[in-house]
Amino acid sequence: MVTLQDVRDAAARLDGIAHRTPVIHSRTLDELAGAQVFLKAENFQRAGAFKFRGAYHAASRLTADQLSRGIVAFSSGNHAQAVALAARELGSSAIIVMPTDSPAAKIEAVRGYGADIVTYDRYTEDRHAIAGDLAATRGLALIPPYDHPDVIAGQGTATLELLDEIGEIDTLVAPIGGGGLIAGSATVAKALHPGVRVIGVEPEAGDDTRRSLAAGEPVRIPVARTIADGLTVPVPGDITFPLNQRLVDEVILVSDDDLRDAMRFALDRLKIVLEPSGAAGLAALLTRRLPTDSARIGAILSGGNVGATRLAELIG
Amino acid sequence: MVTLQDVRDAAARLDGIAHRTPVIHSRTLDELAGAQVFLKAENFQRAGAFKFRGAYHAASRLTADQLSRGIVAFSSGNHAQAVALAARELGSSAIIVMPTDSPAAKIEAVRGYGADIVTYDRYTEDRHAIAGDLAATRGLALIPPYDHPDVIAGQGTATLELLDEIGEIDTLVAPIGGGGLIAGSATVAKALHPGVRVIGVEPEAGDDTRRSLAAGEPVRIPVARTIADGLTVPVPGDITFPLNQRLVDEVILVSDDDLRDAMRFALDRLKIVLEPSGAAGLAALLTRRLPTDSARIGAILSGGNVGATRLAELIG
Repeated sequence: MVTLQDVRDAAARLDGIAHRTPVIHSRTLDELAGAQVFLKAENFQRAGAFKFRGAYHAASRLTADQLSRGIVAFSSGNHAQAVALAARELGSSAIIVMPTDSPAAKIEAVRGYGADIVTYDRYTEDRHAIAGDLAATRGLALIPPYDHPDVIAGQGTATLELLDEIGEIDTLVAPIGGGGLIAGSATVAKALHPGVRVIGVEPEAGDDTRRSLAAGEPVRIPVARTIADGLTVPVPGDITFPLNQRLVDEVILVSDDDLRDAMRFALDRLKIVLEPSGAAGLAALLTRRLPTDSARIGAILSGGNVGATRLAELIG
Repeated sequence: MVTLQDVRDAAARLDGIAHRTPVIHSRTLDELAGAQVFLKAENFQRAGAFKFRGAYHAASRLTADQLSRGIVAFSSGNHAQAVALAARELGSSAIIVMPTDSPAAKIEAVRGYGADIVTYDRYTEDRHAIAGDLAATRGLALIPPYDHPDVIAGQGTATLELLDEIGEIDTLVAPIGGGGLIAGSATVAKALHPGVRVIGVEPEAGDDTRRSLAAGEPVRIPVARTIADGLTVPVPGDITFPLNQRLVDEVILVSDDDLRDAMRFALDRLKIVLEPSGAAGLAALLTRRLPTDSARIGAILSGGNVGATRLAELIG
């Protein structure tokens, strides 16, 4: 449904527009993780997270007519900024449907990219319905946060760059929210190195993909109350789930305390800012939850949009 | 006393040992600063600050006999870590004389590099005397934090890399503590581009170099109480001051609040951690204190050793 060639095509469209983010290596982390670790730092991506890759790629495939009418998206935050920036880059406009309790830094950033915002209560309202309604009544193109082949292919480009830079790995680690990042990542990794193990990371309170994989079908959980606001999707996607059933080998859970410790490690030792969701892979590494025979690990640090005030609350 | 060739020689010694740190560019910063800005991110340097350049360079020029006896250094923090790591890299040992109120993260890091620590009260005791005594009685080689040509030449390599990467600039900005970083930086910048303006930044409470330049001779001030613990040297160095009299065009002052705002900007927008001293150049840019005709500015972000707990206190 999404192939390595789709990801290569996405990479060509993103060339010169998305940042080729740095790969970070830390001797201290290698010692703590008991393996060689390569961190793909998508917190340095445009709009602060990997989401720009998928959003821009999907938007770039809209027709001129669609772009002139505009884009609509729903998102707990990073996809919102990504779509807002992508729309601006392509000379289009965007309306973003965001939860009322989104971090202030994320709402401000979306406005900063020139998008309009419609808010909803994520404990009682259905964002799909709100966005679908806007799309239908105003003729807007909906770019979903994960459940779309163009979005998934775009997200895969981070891993394409990572493997291009560091060569073969035995284990790839990525957080799972809606599952678009890991689906794209796994598509690339397993096509290039069939023996690679793909490990997803979810917050303990938001383990819908782990449960769904165990059950063999999508399992819906209550909206998770976790600091990892980017990973609180209650049920795997219709498109991402079958891909991840085939491509993801294991899902590891981390606690909010694990995420805080990983954020502190990133600040103290790597000198970088990660949002809680973005620290999920690092948390799995630092708590040594990965298979013990992993020797060469790639991990996607998915984003850094947390804001200084919220950061201080989380780590203080 | 220190020439471009000295800095080039230092760069050759540091090649493959010090990190060639990234140069960061931010459209948002350009807009706020009203100029094109290139940030040399020495917070990503080994041991977390530019200090490793000078410390390693100086240590690498010691004789085998000196290295076998060991190194002694005094420092408010970053030079301590730098000398500890340099000694370890060269198979030597180090004793570091540190203030009792050094940030915990810095003391821990020095111990982590295997050095021994001797503490002193920086409001009542003389660290020069303590270190000199250790050097005399134990036959140790003293590597001072700034007042040494080899140290100054090593610090200049950051600017050599910066200009090699971005080409000509009209203004170079660097913080001033003891003056070693700016002396080395200015040596390189003015040798390569004679018209460049070199601007130093000091905390309002620690403006010894500004006063000294105005007076035409070194002026001693009380030990500054500022969050910029790396910039609290009370009097310019015997070697750095005459160099900076010749090479530094202007010194700008920033408040502790300016430094906090700059640290927040770095976290929010650049996704990087700066310690207060390391944010001095950014604070000068964000407050628009630089000459208004600056169009292409290089700025050294000198370090990122603040620690997550202290960071949360400072920005919360």
